[in-house]
Amino acid sequence: MEFAYDAKTEELRERLLSFMDEHVYPAEPVFEEQLAERDSEWTSVPIVEELKAEARRRGLWNFFLPGEHGGGLTNLQYAPLAEITGHSPRLAPTALNCAAPDTGNMEVLTMFGNEQQRKQWLQPLLDGEIRSAFAMTEPDVASSDARNISTRIERDGDEYVINGRKWFISGAMNPNCQIFIVMGKTDPDAAPHRQQSMILVPRDTPGLVVKRGMKVFGYSDGDHGGHAEVVFENVRVPAENLLAEEGSGFAIAQARLGPGRIHHCMRLIGMAERALKLMCERTLSRSTFGKPIAEQGVVQDWIAESRVRIEQLRLLVLKTAWLMDTVGNQGAHTEIQSIKITTPASVEWIIDKAIQAHGAGGVSQDFPLAELWMSARMLRLADGPDEVHKRSLAHRELKQYRTEGAK
Amino acid sequence: MEFAYDAKTEELRERLLSFMDEHVYPAEPVFEEQLAERDSEWTSVPIVEELKAEARRRGLWNFFLPGEHGGGLTNLQYAPLAEITGHSPRLAPTALNCAAPDTGNMEVLTMFGNEQQRKQWLQPLLDGEIRSAFAMTEPDVASSDARNISTRIERDGDEYVINGRKWFISGAMNPNCQIFIVMGKTDPDAAPHRQQSMILVPRDTPGLVVKRGMKVFGYSDGDHGGHAEVVFENVRVPAENLLAEEGSGFAIAQARLGPGRIHHCMRLIGMAERALKLMCERTLSRSTFGKPIAEQGVVQDWIAESRVRIEQLRLLVLKTAWLMDTVGNQGAHTEIQSIKITTPASVEWIIDKAIQAHGAGGVSQDFPLAELWMSARMLRLADGPDEVHKRSLAHRELKQYRTEGAK
Amino acid sequence: MEFAYDAKTEELRERLLSFMDEHVYPAEPVFEEQLAERDSEWTSVPIVEELKAEARRRGLWNFFLPGEHGGGLTNLQYAPLAEITGHSPRLAPTALNCAAPDTGNMEVLTMFGNEQQRKQWLQPLLDGEIRSAFAMTEPDVASSDARNISTRIERDGDEYVINGRKWFISGAMNPNCQIFIVMGKTDPDAAPHRQQSMILVPRDTPGLVVKRGMKVFGYSDGDHGGHAEVVFENVRVPAENLLAEEGSGFAIAQARLGPGRIHHCMRLIGMAERALKLMCERTLSRSTFGKPIAEQGVVQDWIAESRVRIEQLRLLVLKTAWLMDTVGNQGAHTEIQSIKITTPASVEWIIDKAIQAHGAGGVSQDFPLAELWMSARMLRLADGPDEVHKRSLAHRELKQYRTEGAK
Amino acid sequence: MEFAYDAKTEELRERLLSFMDEHVYPAEPVFEEQLAERDSEWTSVPIVEELKAEARRRGLWNFFLPGEHGGGLTNLQYAPLAEITGHSPRLAPTALNCAAPDTGNMEVLTMFGNEQQRKQWLQPLLDGEIRSAFAMTEPDVASSDARNISTRIERDGDEYVINGRKWFISGAMNPNCQIFIVMGKTDPDAAPHRQQSMILVPRDTPGLVVKRGMKVFGYSDGDHGGHAEVVFENVRVPAENLLAEEGSGFAIAQARLGPGRIHHCMRLIGMAERALKLMCERTLSRSTFGKPIAEQGVVQDWIAESRVRIEQLRLLVLKTAWLMDTVGNQGAHTEIQSIKITTPASVEWIIDKAIQAHGAGGVSQDFPLAELWMSARMLRLADGPDEVHKRSLAHRELKQYRTEGAK
Repeated sequence: MEFAYDAKTEELRERLLSFMDEHVYPAEPVFEEQLAERDSEWTSVPIVEELKAEARRRGLWNFFLPGEHGGGLTNLQYAPLAEITGHSPRLAPTALNCAAPDTGNMEVLTMFGNEQQRKQWLQPLLDGEIRSAFAMTEPDVASSDARNISTRIERDGDEYVINGRKWFISGAMNPNCQIFIVMGKTDPDAAPHRQQSMILVPRDTPGLVVKRGMKVFGYSDGDHGGHAEVVFENVRVPAENLLAEEGSGFAIAQARLGPGRIHHCMRLIGMAERALKLMCERTLSRSTFGKPIAEQGVVQDWIAESRVRIEQLRLLVLKTAWLMDTVGNQGAHTEIQSIKITTPASVEWIIDKAIQAHGAGGVSQDFPLAELWMSARMLRLADGPDEVHKRSLAHRELKQYRTEGAK
Repeated sequence: MEFAYDAKTEELRERLLSFMDEHVYPAEPVFEEQLAERDSEWTSVPIVEELKAEARRRGLWNFFLPGEHGGGLTNLQYAPLAEITGHSPRLAPTALNCAAPDTGNMEVLTMFGNEQQRKQWLQPLLDGEIRSAFAMTEPDVASSDARNISTRIERDGDEYVINGRKWFISGAMNPNCQIFIVMGKTDPDAAPHRQQSMILVPRDTPGLVVKRGMKVFGYSDGDHGGHAEVVFENVRVPAENLLAEEGSGFAIAQARLGPGRIHHCMRLIGMAERALKLMCERTLSRSTFGKPIAEQGVVQDWIAESRVRIEQLRLLVLKTAWLMDTVGNQGAHTEIQSIKITTPASVEWIIDKAIQAHGAGGVSQDFPLAELWMSARMLRLADGPDEVHKRSLAHRELKQYRTEGAK
Repeated sequence: MEFAYDAKTEELRERLLSFMDEHVYPAEPVFEEQLAERDSEWTSVPIVEELKAEARRRGLWNFFLPGEHGGGLTNLQYAPLAEITGHSPRLAPTALNCAAPDTGNMEVLTMFGNEQQRKQWLQPLLDGEIRSAFAMTEPDVASSDARNISTRIERDGDEYVINGRKWFISGAMNPNCQIFIVMGKTDPDAAPHRQQSMILVPRDTPGLVVKRGMKVFGYSDGDHGGHAEVVFENVRVPAENLLAEEGSGFAIAQARLGPGRIHHCMRLIGMAERALKLMCERTLSRSTFGKPIAEQGVVQDWIAESRVRIEQLRLLVLKTAWLMDTVGNQGAHTEIQSIKITTPASVEWIIDKAIQAHGAGGVSQDFPLAELWMSARMLRLADGPDEVHKRSLAHRELKQYRTEGAK
Repeated sequence: MEFAYDAKTEELRERLLSFMDEHVYPAEPVFEEQLAERDSEWTSVPIVEELKAEARRRGLWNFFLPGEHGGGLTNLQYAPLAEITGHSPRLAPTALNCAAPDTGNMEVLTMFGNEQQRKQWLQPLLDGEIRSAFAMTEPDVASSDARNISTRIERDGDEYVINGRKWFISGAMNPNCQIFIVMGKTDPDAAPHRQQSMILVPRDTPGLVVKRGMKVFGYSDGDHGGHAEVVFENVRVPAENLLAEEGSGFAIAQARLGPGRIHHCMRLIGMAERALKLMCERTLSRSTFGKPIAEQGVVQDWIAESRVRIEQLRLLVLKTAWLMDTVGNQGAHTEIQSIKITTPASVEWIIDKAIQAHGAGGVSQDFPLAELWMSARMLRLADGPDEVHKRSLAHRELKQYRTEGAK
């Protein structure tokens, strides 16, 4: 057992921290200005492309993807880097081409795409030239039970015909989001976990309508392409657009979610670190009742509690990454659920306290805290609400005793 | 001791509930449509004026204000009515001319305004013709300690000259917000609680610049006039614009905050009721894992806990109203702080659970929950953060033992 | 609506407070000494009998029981008196002949006992001459679902024969506990709520074995007769010992639990008040890091939070009492469950903080806090765990929406 | 970074698990029987000596102590073994000669004892022949601020004279507790951290009176020698009994507490694992409302939450052990405080839920849960209450920003 990062990780951390200091933090105010001057709420801005170019030039690119296509890092090596990108979550992940949902989509294409699909869609995504969307959640059913997904994908000759309604399709409002991975039912009569398939649908396919942006606590997330409601009405794509085979949708979704969850959690820890830093700085610089707010006992309690929680979260996320590397995503199932259960909720708590310590400023656009909070809160819901994961984890915990009992 | 509402309250509750059913709830979607079609983010819309006219016609008007100018109700009689307006908090309080910050401002003018001030500003406010703002919080100091307020109000001949910067001035972005009550220092050398004064500043006074709208978790609250940053640069008003006398600012602020806090808490309870209703309806109508979400044990735990919390909050708010009526706002000081400490936090918890039960929809614009949540969260900060009130309440609790010890 | 106690309540409160000051608090150290000198862990001590005599002399007797047999008080009048007895929960309730489980048993005998049963058992209980037990909970089943109760009560000629095992039978270790009300199945084939009956079993009946005292967090509660495991092996009693009729056991249990729960909650609030008082006094008298502990922000947070919680709990308990008086125990069902859910848990929290503020002394026998804590913790379990009550309350909350949906 | 235990740890874990299965768990009921048959509440029982002999025979001995005198393990290697002893905390730590307070005392004697002191007291402790006590906490001051300690140790010729009162001196009621390490003031005029010294006082020294056992939530902990109040009245010991030098008491206390805290936390994690196991087994074996309690959603929530918390605690404790091994106890200061803050509180939460899932049985002597709970609760207070550690940790967190600000 050994708790120090390896040499490669340390070297990359240093390079990434330099990039953050030299380029990302200075870009934050520029980013805000450029956003304010956009014509459309849904487009990206030049500073982002400049950061991407600089990051790629520095070799800080596609770290999220193990293997030849990506940065060649293990999950355990990527984790501390992803954490650092969480310090500036609206810029750094995109700058390094490590932003959701593209990361998950690239993983899916790497694992399940055929040569043609990889050439057409994976390559431009790896090059940061286009964006992509993952269309799973539906407004009309409780999507936390994936078997509820009701969009139909029906074979008709050499084509598939897609009908259904999706929402909270992140990134889809961005006009440069050119490809949708759509989940739907190809065979409603199959066994529950074999009914679903995934299929590639280019943005300009007739019948695909990106209808509106859904808001998250007042935020449109427009600079990330928002969260769209998307309608599929007799959308036809060639049969070869199917990913893997019919009935494999549920398995692909599972394969996609493991790394996605750990990336989110890594970044959340970075977000918590930033919130804690802001809380310390603010409370040291303002006084009430004759002393700095930082000397109020309740504020110190928040600071200590935040530090203790962050340390625990980080270790659990790192161990999960190590398990994914050593025993595979399946072997790390319990730990992946564990970090999904605990990280968003704990980080939300920390950011909430940082907001409270800032007074009215904390909820406003003058500090990043309210937006950080929104991200953490959203992740208590996204990829399945915590409650569903707790239920599943408890079933697994209980299972060993059931088996024993049966002996 | 008697826990039933009196006959007058019951009668008004029925009339108000009819108004809600017949006019307010049907107006909600119209309101959203009209908001979407506005030219400016900061203006009100016609449906609101229609509701105001109808409410006034029905005698549902100015209930918040005791005495001859208002509805002639006690606080205890008003409380259950304010709660009902919380079911539709963006429409109902305004419809009844019972919306903050105008309510508090009307109270201040009633109590501390001279005849001329009341005629010029109170009357049009009572008639719902203009809006007003209360300019206290400042970006450059921790305003939870009112003695930090640094805006200067200096006498210069027959005028006062005002210099300073305020933010989170609710309602001020609305062009029809015609009058500002501004708090600032007239005498920095006086005793701490005698340094501040309040003064009336009409919107069109040279030097008063309404600079920008502050956001609250991404919301601009534009339909309520937002929350403005306002700069006062050599703003000159006649000396007779001063409220009461020099040095009375702190006392006026205290007098204003008591009723303001209880009104907020009353409405919050109505908001919690609406959230609980939505949580029940949604979880009964959607299924996961083979049964309605409402049958999941964790969801039932939320529902029960919400009901139990709401009942406790309502009783404490009602008792506080009764104390204000019987022993005065000073005598109800502990209870006013108590409801301020517990209501926003508990209601935030309830709304959070309702959001979680709705999945992604809960955070979106398709349900009122995210915006309700924002209001509750903001009230953990507004009018002094909970932590300051707890500190003060503890001092008072400890005081009796100190005195005993000194005997 | 009116939040002041009525004149009778105020008068009795004053008399009771005098009795506490003049007799109960001074008796506390005497009680400890006499307990230490007992021959048996399970017997009462002389000081308790002296307090009972004094209380009865002062007319502070049997307040818990409405109607002619008792103190003639409403629940609403009794509530604030029961709270006061919670300040010294090991002495005051017994002194006033208002201690569980005798109170519930007297209620049962009053409501369901025939003339002979009342004469033989109710009268000496009302006179404080004997003690009694209520034998419901069983070690072999989850008793929170009363339908699980498996003790058999079988008719055999003019007798009933009882077989089964009970535990946590409070008071039964006291040799002066002369009568047991036993719940068991008379007809396992009846409808679920008609299978159970209750029957009177005198202590000296052959086959009834009081086996051992169960501990609660290390406490034997010996001065209250402990919490016994009791075995019934072919215990025969005359058929006329049955309460009411066969199959009425479940209904009697329900009738008994309502008042029992509110009495517990009333006393818990008094216990919380005592804990808060001790917390204030202790933290004012001890210093760390250069100032009294009471000036630490975290401690002030506890004090404020405790005060706010106590006020809310008291109001909900009082409203519940008022409902029981005005619409009956059935009509107050939701509220009775609400106070059962929230009072023990909140009071446990308050006492825990008082303990923490006392350091090691707080957990020891030198302060009443650890034992107060144990009582509150136990009540999260006793009379059905909180979780069962929450589940039931949620069902009722959801029911109204189900019905609406069905329309 | 590597999360697998090393080979030596794995091998020792297997040997220890076998010892637990073959000897410790079977000894648990025997232990209870022998305790019940003791003449004195304060003596140990034969089964414990048998377990010690067997453990020593198997080479499972003194693992806690690094270096030549002990088991030759690092903290990181010892941690998972200490966790296992927490599965049976009343037997296993003593069996392996790894029980507090002897472990801390042996560390002190190893680090600060001279040759004579080590020969006379350390050796028999290492051999498990005698027990020892650490006398620091005092009833008359808030001992969480060590500078408050007021016991006097005064030089008088070749002797030191000790006067003072201590309490919660664990183990001291055991007649075989032969040596006391006593902390007191040798120089009240020195700098705050140089006022205290430590001195060895044999049990039979005149003037040392072991007065009574303090209880912890009703438990006397008699089988571990209880928690004594001890009075020192003109107790005279030779000057060479002083540990190290005058004024080094505070430093010795600090050195002692680091390992002590981590050992406690390791065992607590084992206790949490046992509680979780019992919770799963019990809820699978009992039914309410037609299904096993384990299928109630709220219970599953507890189980999942417990698993997630345990994993986080374990990783933080292991990392702390690794830091102690690699950068020393000083370098691990923040982490030692972190585990002290979070482990007792989290484990208390888990055990509380396991109790609740057991119903009345959970609080009784028939399950180990109530006693486990008491241990966890006590550790929120012992060695300094959590709040003091949080305050100190926050100061350190804030310090880096203060320094930055000062640049």
